[in-house]
Amino acid sequence: ASMASRSIRLAVVAGDGIGPEVVAEGLKVLDVIAGQYDLSIEKTSYDLGAARWHRTGEVLPESVLEEIRGQDAILLGAIGDPTVPSGVLERGLLLSLRFALDHYVNLRPVKLLPGVTSPLAGVTPDDIDMIVVREGTEGPYTGVGGVLRKGTPHEVATQESVNTAFGAERVIRYAFEVAAARPRKKLTLVHKDNVLTFAGDLWQRTLKKVAAEFPDVTTDYCHVDAATMFFVNNPQRFDVVVTDNLFGDIITDIGAAIAGGIGLAASGNINPDRSVPSMFEPVHGSAPDIAGQFKADPTATILSVAMLLDHLGLPEAARKIEKAVGEDLTERTGPRPTQQVGDDIAKRVAG
Amino acid sequence: ASMASRSIRLAVVAGDGIGPEVVAEGLKVLDVIAGQYDLSIEKTSYDLGAARWHRTGEVLPESVLEEIRGQDAILLGAIGDPTVPSGVLERGLLLSLRFALDHYVNLRPVKLLPGVTSPLAGVTPDDIDMIVVREGTEGPYTGVGGVLRKGTPHEVATQESVNTAFGAERVIRYAFEVAAARPRKKLTLVHKDNVLTFAGDLWQRTLKKVAAEFPDVTTDYCHVDAATMFFVNNPQRFDVVVTDNLFGDIITDIGAAIAGGIGLAASGNINPDRSVPSMFEPVHGSAPDIAGQFKADPTATILSVAMLLDHLGLPEAARKIEKAVGEDLTERTGPRPTQQVGDDIAKRVAG
Ligand SMILES: CC(C)[C@H](C(=O)O)[C@@H](O)C(=O)O
Ligand SMILES: CC(C)[C@H](C(=O)O)[C@@H](O)C(=O)O
Repeated sequence: ASMASRSIRLAVVAGDGIGPEVVAEGLKVLDVIAGQYDLSIEKTSYDLGAARWHRTGEVLPESVLEEIRGQDAILLGAIGDPTVPSGVLERGLLLSLRFALDHYVNLRPVKLLPGVTSPLAGVTPDDIDMIVVREGTEGPYTGVGGVLRKGTPHEVATQESVNTAFGAERVIRYAFEVAAARPRKKLTLVHKDNVLTFAGDLWQRTLKKVAAEFPDVTTDYCHVDAATMFFVNNPQRFDVVVTDNLFGDIITDIGAAIAGGIGLAASGNINPDRSVPSMFEPVHGSAPDIAGQFKADPTATILSVAMLLDHLGLPEAARKIEKAVGEDLTERTGPRPTQQVGDDIAKRVAG
Repeated sequence: ASMASRSIRLAVVAGDGIGPEVVAEGLKVLDVIAGQYDLSIEKTSYDLGAARWHRTGEVLPESVLEEIRGQDAILLGAIGDPTVPSGVLERGLLLSLRFALDHYVNLRPVKLLPGVTSPLAGVTPDDIDMIVVREGTEGPYTGVGGVLRKGTPHEVATQESVNTAFGAERVIRYAFEVAAARPRKKLTLVHKDNVLTFAGDLWQRTLKKVAAEFPDVTTDYCHVDAATMFFVNNPQRFDVVVTDNLFGDIITDIGAAIAGGIGLAASGNINPDRSVPSMFEPVHGSAPDIAGQFKADPTATILSVAMLLDHLGLPEAARKIEKAVGEDLTERTGPRPTQQVGDDIAKRVAG
């Protein structure tokens, strides 16, 4: 037995609902890859989510956050449970990790894989192949806002979208880099600048400014409402999309839908500075209605593991997983339990 | 010739781009109806939009607004032009009318009409039949916000979503009334209460409160991101949807897409108090790229005229237009110029 040539400290936050089920399969595939690429994966599982909150009232203790900060990457399952007030875990855990670790790039490929049927009539894999770069640390997600005269007929509740030149510029520059590396080299800003004029104007001016650094990339603009329509009737229109936190949340769910379902949509919450761990997670939620039944498709998590490997500088390993997933999707026959999908893909990766 | 039994003062704001082209066809059909129902339509055309702004710098002069306030209804084409800075006409004219006339209900049916092909594979008219009740006077559309250190690396731009108990309650009650009158009697709140916790909580509590008045209506809740996905892969899930101004803007464009395109989507900006005119307009924009070519489909505007007649208490006339549109959609063969579509539908209405 040779010494592993590289060691990776991985924080595992399986979370709620189907989270643990799909994360188990992601790790199964990762373990096969580790054997092949001489990686030693040092996993630390963090017990965070609904169960811990019920037991202790804690969501993300400062000491846990500090420990996670020292890891190389995070694999997250899903967060959220109907027994916990809405927002407590989503804001307190998931968004807290994104904000604390400054995951300003939320990278979400929208790609129709071979063997997958889109709900859109007549579209082929060539028609749906884009990457959404969603801003991850500001916009309407800041939590700024409040409530006045709660519970009275005079209640006022506000939510503030906070947008900074610093925040827009860094994510837009990242999106240009992604676009420049793709054949079509096209970047579309999605916003609502005719209504949200202050934020929209900042995003537009920042896009123009950064565009000067990327003369090969063509840019255009699309209102978020029109964009959702084009996702349905003209997805070919998009190559790389850059957008704010809320619009990105919304359009990547339509993206998942047109690309064959939320069971296949992977994502990375990325801090390109690499001084802190980036976090990889399926786009889907905790799906409490099917939790414990091993019906969930772990493919999105397995593809998120591929994104994790890409981020850690192991593109060959990432491509291997993607190839195995592609073959699995093409050759699968009927519905399979969660573990079976993981086994099948792991077997293909093992070769 | 008999005296007209009822006179309707109609403000016509044809607007920009394809606006005048589609409005002409809406009026063509309305004129036929007027003859049949002894209506005298007193039209006043308001020259508002890009041309006036270029000529005079005016968007919506106070005196014009006061005149419009005295009308019975407004028919609007489309607002917005690439030669005018984004937001000037949208905020200054369209949203100003909605806000000034307190159009708190933005009613947007999403219905796959017979003869129309949805881009979704295998769906039939039974699968897509919902009504979106979009709040029209608050939320992120208020324009509250600002910019600090504009143009510097330290720029901060904010947009505030303002939500009131008063505003949420009245539109939710209206949505319950719509749901109670439909066979399925189901109302879905669409929001993002796990992230926009202050506003989401207000909407949720208000829904629960008003639900007590409508024991026959079942309610549920759906995050906006999941809702966009369900529009694509499970539109049957929805009967009546109530949602805020921005979410409503977004989901009704997907709604238009799945129901066969923006050329068919009608809407009403309604103030149920009837002390001020309500405003009817196609959901589509001014489409400057095809303006002047008479390629635009006026069907959305013609269906908006039907909504206008419904609002004015002329449901029989409204049904007649809808029936004519349904027949036209079923029997049309190829693409037709804008005027031809109007002629064809007018002829059917004439009988
Ligand atoms: C769970 C929720 C807070 C989250 C988000 O809104 O970002 C999810 O929808 C996502 O897209 O990752
Ligand atoms: C033109 C624009 C301001 C408008 C809106 O956002 O409401 C339009 O998209 C609509 O849906 O009526």
